[in-house]
Amino acid sequence: MNTTVIAEVKILPMGTGQPGVSHLIADCVSLLDGAKDITWQVTPMATVIEGPLERILELAAKMHELPFSKGVQRVVTSINIDDRRDKKITMNGKVKAVEEKLGEAGKA
Amino acid sequence: MNTTVIAEVKILPMGTGQPGVSHLIADCVSLLDGAKDITWQVTPMATVIEGPLERILELAAKMHELPFSKGVQRVVTSINIDDRRDKKITMNGKVKAVEEKLGEAGKA
Amino acid sequence: MNTTVIAEVKILPMGTGQPGVSHLIADCVSLLDGAKDITWQVTPMATVIEGPLERILELAAKMHELPFSKGVQRVVTSINIDDRRDKKITMNGKVKAVEEKLGEAGKA
Amino acid sequence: MNTTVIAEVKILPMGTGQPGVSHLIADCVSLLDGAKDITWQVTPMATVIEGPLERILELAAKMHELPFSKGVQRVVTSINIDDRRDKKITMNGKVKAVEEKLGEAGKA
Repeated sequence: MNTTVIAEVKILPMGTGQPGVSHLIADCVSLLDGAKDITWQVTPMATVIEGPLERILELAAKMHELPFSKGVQRVVTSINIDDRRDKKITMNGKVKAVEEKLGEAGKA
Repeated sequence: MNTTVIAEVKILPMGTGQPGVSHLIADCVSLLDGAKDITWQVTPMATVIEGPLERILELAAKMHELPFSKGVQRVVTSINIDDRRDKKITMNGKVKAVEEKLGEAGKA
Repeated sequence: MNTTVIAEVKILPMGTGQPGVSHLIADCVSLLDGAKDITWQVTPMATVIEGPLERILELAAKMHELPFSKGVQRVVTSINIDDRRDKKITMNGKVKAVEEKLGEAGKA
Repeated sequence: MNTTVIAEVKILPMGTGQPGVSHLIADCVSLLDGAKDITWQVTPMATVIEGPLERILELAAKMHELPFSKGVQRVVTSINIDDRRDKKITMNGKVKAVEEKLGEAGKA
């Protein structure tokens, strides 16, 4: 059960009074900085994390909690998990698998 | 931090060889049957759970794990959390809040 | 391509200055009232719509646009589509399929 | 209404009989190649597209349809839209906004 999964975490602080929330998102993401057992990257729509599922859920719960400590009263959080057991998957591997096939399709 | 949240859990068993997966979903949902501290309901697209966030994440991880025990090799799971701290929210309360305002809009 | 799909639409008006947004959601959902070719229901986390994909995307785009007309400056919308071509699916049928198997599992 | 939005599209071909689906995802993504009015990038969990909402929904519907033409019988597709009207947003701009604030938080 301690296999590596790829997960996508989106934190949406609601009702803040202003459309921009990147300062809050940065605070959430900073919780991943130096965290053991995981690697992560920021994409335009989410933070993608690679690591053991339990660890990722624990960190996602902390990220979800953070905006409340800054006075936000409602947070909507999405966690999307991709867990494959027939072979090891990595964040880079998933992108490469699509891009390589995309290249082949383009040549055809 | 032990407030009640509403969460939506979607389990997608991948690569099963057949489009129908409701038997696997039923197995996942049966893990909620009799679970303490939560209430839940099945909707056409997900299972909605009301309870403490930690408890829901723990149960969602078990639901996510179940299809692997039935031979499935890849599971994609989505967890969507709505957490509001200014007032208590419930599954029924959220639907009623929309339906009542919908009724008023209809009358206007 | 004009098969019936089941879709879930979530509209999140951001930055409104208050955690509650059910009046805006009700306005969005009211656009479905009397809409041809579809049936729909409100769940605690989303609006579920059954109908042709093109029609649903058209309505979801209108729902997504509505909060801007009320002064909201940012809207995050999720559309989740389940499209099965081997047999007709319905909102009620999907819930029943899980609940019946859940009942059998319970008896076992 | 013709503002630029950022959207994330995830195509999940179900029941294919094998856990890997990157060849199908590559086929879906290849539909974006050379498409007018949009820019896009592949992330580990999704394809992110920047452009007018109507155009993105049109392309997402085509991506969703593609696996059926390859014999897949069920496709679950998620479209997540971020639409901000107070200022122009771009895929890169969103990532930079978080990373810059992350850098500042790190220095503090």
